[in-house]
Amino acid sequence: MVKTIEYLNGVVRMIDQTRLPNETVFIDSTTPEEVGECIRSMVIRGAPAIGVAAALGASLAADRIEADDFDSFYAQLEDDCAALSKTRPTAVNLAWALERMKRFAQDHRDLSVAELKTALRGEACRILEEDVAINRAMGMNGQALLSQGQQVLTHCNAGALATAGYGTALGVIRAAIESGKNISVFANETRPFLQGARLTAWELKEDNIPVTLITDNMCGHFMKEKRIDAVVVGADRIAANGDVANKIGTYMVAVLAQKHGIPFYVAAPVSTLDLSLPDGSHIPIEERSVEEVVTLNKTRIAPEGVNAAHPAFDVTPNELVSAIITEKGVARPPYTESLKQLAGS
Amino acid sequence: MVKTIEYLNGVVRMIDQTRLPNETVFIDSTTPEEVGECIRSMVIRGAPAIGVAAALGASLAADRIEADDFDSFYAQLEDDCAALSKTRPTAVNLAWALERMKRFAQDHRDLSVAELKTALRGEACRILEEDVAINRAMGMNGQALLSQGQQVLTHCNAGALATAGYGTALGVIRAAIESGKNISVFANETRPFLQGARLTAWELKEDNIPVTLITDNMCGHFMKEKRIDAVVVGADRIAANGDVANKIGTYMVAVLAQKHGIPFYVAAPVSTLDLSLPDGSHIPIEERSVEEVVTLNKTRIAPEGVNAAHPAFDVTPNELVSAIITEKGVARPPYTESLKQLAGS
Repeated sequence: MVKTIEYLNGVVRMIDQTRLPNETVFIDSTTPEEVGECIRSMVIRGAPAIGVAAALGASLAADRIEADDFDSFYAQLEDDCAALSKTRPTAVNLAWALERMKRFAQDHRDLSVAELKTALRGEACRILEEDVAINRAMGMNGQALLSQGQQVLTHCNAGALATAGYGTALGVIRAAIESGKNISVFANETRPFLQGARLTAWELKEDNIPVTLITDNMCGHFMKEKRIDAVVVGADRIAANGDVANKIGTYMVAVLAQKHGIPFYVAAPVSTLDLSLPDGSHIPIEERSVEEVVTLNKTRIAPEGVNAAHPAFDVTPNELVSAIITEKGVARPPYTESLKQLAGS
Repeated sequence: MVKTIEYLNGVVRMIDQTRLPNETVFIDSTTPEEVGECIRSMVIRGAPAIGVAAALGASLAADRIEADDFDSFYAQLEDDCAALSKTRPTAVNLAWALERMKRFAQDHRDLSVAELKTALRGEACRILEEDVAINRAMGMNGQALLSQGQQVLTHCNAGALATAGYGTALGVIRAAIESGKNISVFANETRPFLQGARLTAWELKEDNIPVTLITDNMCGHFMKEKRIDAVVVGADRIAANGDVANKIGTYMVAVLAQKHGIPFYVAAPVSTLDLSLPDGSHIPIEERSVEEVVTLNKTRIAPEGVNAAHPAFDVTPNELVSAIITEKGVARPPYTESLKQLAGS
């Protein structure tokens, strides 16, 4: 499996997810602006992965700062972090990683500027390494919810490519398979960006996990035909009451799952929780360019000049969520209590 | 507005709907086999339109028959009709139109073979012309269900391009606008064939009807945001109990509409009713090539060799259908009674 993102001596290397699966191309960034552009243009995407990218971007920012004292250093670091935090609005992991980098700098203000740069580089790499460990723990916690022989639907890509490795939703599926269960996957293609067709189908196929690709509008039909036993998706931000912001279409999947009595699980690290927001109505929903709707691989698929819309995320209300799987355990309703408990543990 | 299909002195001319909206190309057929291939490859699609195409195909078949007596003529006509009827399985209008052509031949068995060929040509053209009149009547009946200022969601293309003109679901919208109501449309793009993006968006834009194109997985989000007031779709076959087979994804839209208390209307001519089937479980659902899922405009959008599925239709159970709009009136539940009444009237 290729690495989603890695740090190589002053260079942040990412696989270009806009060109998978047809081309395997890597993009090297040496400035926080280049990393920011990779996040904005979705060269890298997935809440945990863009958190890791932002942390590495902050480290690149630190490396180029010329300052004699901490306050001057920190002011410049803060500016670069502010710019990075604006690249995408919905996934809270981006802000979480940047906050962690800034807090780390504050906690180590006694170091020399040179020592601090090295230490921040270490912290960014730790965020990357921890992410894989978090996903493995999440997988272990979540796999217990899946049974032998089940067919699991997922939406978008909450896999290795959405993280530093292993994946959140797909991590749960991988862990279930590693524990000896025979699991097969239905992957929604996930228009407009086709993360399901391009990324989920690709990484599952690479791992020899049985996958059937379907268009998003087919999943209701397959639920009705009793071909889907459970749903597992990732998340970009989870409010204190358990409302979940995730890729557009997740809400549709959750409503259909409820209609058919199918459990709907969300797998996300604790860094995706935003307990400062009482509910999902406060989560900012990114509006992306309608060009991504009316064209596909630069081919026009709709008439010139047609009006279109492109909300990139939606909010699934907590009453449709059967459980939230984290690295610290599985939260069940009422989430206002269970999430607070997990976050504090 | 271009003509979906027309008959020109021995030639059946269709606009190639696989190439809209980027290219406006017409395909001329002079044999029933060529017409059949246009139906199979979706050069023409939409239940009423393929009924018209089949009737014209049967007329081309009649024209080339060399026979001295009715029985020999009819045996050859039946063979060609049988071949045409196998081009697509779900839309009952195809079988309906071919049955009508065969019955017409039987009813005029006293004519000479030459006279019969001319008469069958007239009958096929009548089926074409009647279709537009039927759609206008359906529009008048259905437009009363829409109110001033409403935003209406539609799925697939049940428009002029799915019929000989005016459309079924889009006919209802056109009639509402012609009666002075200010209606705007949300069009689901309708993967994998993109009838919504390519055809519905195109024909509404041509008619200056306000339309917003969305991906299929967005419609739940817009319902939740109270941006959609009603749903109107077409149908490929309706069973005696009101179960509706229509383009894949229709079931998903119906479940979402019910969840949000939004009326879900089906607009279809009486020729779409198949009262011989007690319920939707008896409707054959076409499985089309997965190539249509894993490629788009010949561009590969999924990894080579990935498993995929392509049911081209789904069945929406009658309890999700608020009303069925036909040219003879609007049927309400219980459909077992109301549809029988309409069909008999």
